[in-house]
Amino acid sequence: MEEGAPMKIQRYKHDSENSYALGAALTYELVSNMPAYARRVFIRSNITKTAAVTELLSMCRNKRIPVTENDKAFNILSPKGNCFVIGEFKKPCFPIGNASHIVLVNPSDAGNLGTILRTAVGFGIDQVAVVRPAVDVFDPKTVRASMGAVFRARVQYFDSIEAYREAFPENRLYAFMLKASRPIGEVEIREPYSLVFGNEATGLPDRFAEFCESVVIPHSNGIDSLNLPIAAGVAMYEFTKEYWHQTKRNT
Amino acid sequence: MEEGAPMKIQRYKHDSENSYALGAALTYELVSNMPAYARRVFIRSNITKTAAVTELLSMCRNKRIPVTENDKAFNILSPKGNCFVIGEFKKPCFPIGNASHIVLVNPSDAGNLGTILRTAVGFGIDQVAVVRPAVDVFDPKTVRASMGAVFRARVQYFDSIEAYREAFPENRLYAFMLKASRPIGEVEIREPYSLVFGNEATGLPDRFAEFCESVVIPHSNGIDSLNLPIAAGVAMYEFTKEYWHQTKRNT
Repeated sequence: MEEGAPMKIQRYKHDSENSYALGAALTYELVSNMPAYARRVFIRSNITKTAAVTELLSMCRNKRIPVTENDKAFNILSPKGNCFVIGEFKKPCFPIGNASHIVLVNPSDAGNLGTILRTAVGFGIDQVAVVRPAVDVFDPKTVRASMGAVFRARVQYFDSIEAYREAFPENRLYAFMLKASRPIGEVEIREPYSLVFGNEATGLPDRFAEFCESVVIPHSNGIDSLNLPIAAGVAMYEFTKEYWHQTKRNT
Repeated sequence: MEEGAPMKIQRYKHDSENSYALGAALTYELVSNMPAYARRVFIRSNITKTAAVTELLSMCRNKRIPVTENDKAFNILSPKGNCFVIGEFKKPCFPIGNASHIVLVNPSDAGNLGTILRTAVGFGIDQVAVVRPAVDVFDPKTVRASMGAVFRARVQYFDSIEAYREAFPENRLYAFMLKASRPIGEVEIREPYSLVFGNEATGLPDRFAEFCESVVIPHSNGIDSLNLPIAAGVAMYEFTKEYWHQTKRNT
């Protein structure tokens, strides 16, 4: 916490220094995975102190994260009223490193970005590059859709795909697009890889086929395309399945 | 159309006889796939007659579906104001037949149901059983999330999993659950199959392992579970991939 007067509670804006985990389960993920970034926890005066809530509050005490009863915070941040705990956190900035990545080019929906982060942490490709313009990874809607996976993933923004490529020249890029040269089942996987996905409405521009291996997930003509998080989920499954099946066999 | 006075336009309720496709793209899917169920099309007075809108209106004329300018319909059905075409349709009831199925037990989220229908049509498993209590497949939110796939799929509701099993004793049931005996990569696929998924928050009850082959999609401990439409998408991909890759090679 900074010194001086307590910070004002404000409705989230993209340029805010802080954001919010709305709900006890998300706040638990925040406090257990990124305690150094958790600033305050607000509870509603009419909260029921279930075992889970008691455990959360005791964890906050141990990690010296202040907890305050503050109904006004809920009126501002979660006016619908089905939320009893809010975790305020300083937005972190963890650059991604040398590894396989997910690369999202111009994603526009907070719920989709959160779902993709949850899936990425699930399949262990938890370093994610996002090419601007793009939705905000710390928007409370993204945080909620990620079910807290946003506190376990690393997400770095880039101004262009070229900037990303310069930073990670070793990575082999696989671009998921409808006009593609190979179906996913025939792709040779070489690590470190980057699984590249376009915007929900427009997909990837054709020019991505010039510097990526273009890949399609075959489907019927009954739909125009798979929904973005589904395509990303299937791709992550296919690229990591050997690893997970081996892990499963060895446990 | 029924005879007599035009039907009143009402906000959608689950027991309504009619529902609504909100937007030109969805209305196009309605009119091209289920013209016999399309009752009326409403357009907003300030609509821009793009090529797509003109094509839609001409298709309505050919199929004798009445089109009326009616701003009040938009105030009632789509108050946010970014919608210029609404298709009103009688909710159909097409029972599913002998085939492989998706079985959704107690799905509670309209967006998820719509996304699963879109994926199901994409992978060609377009007959879907839904076990009650469950969200409404013709809720305008489901229709929208399906991107119109709801007009290509068949969806039948059942009061219990037992009722479903009695109707389709031939089907081999694969239940996707965390406590499962096999990882998805080691499952022997036998047609016709039923891919069974539980509720978003609670999953499938343990007892499903007694009459289904239980299957898990392996993932890290960083998440509690995959999101329901992602798990369903990965399962449909894995169960149909041989077919789609052969199809792709032969075209």
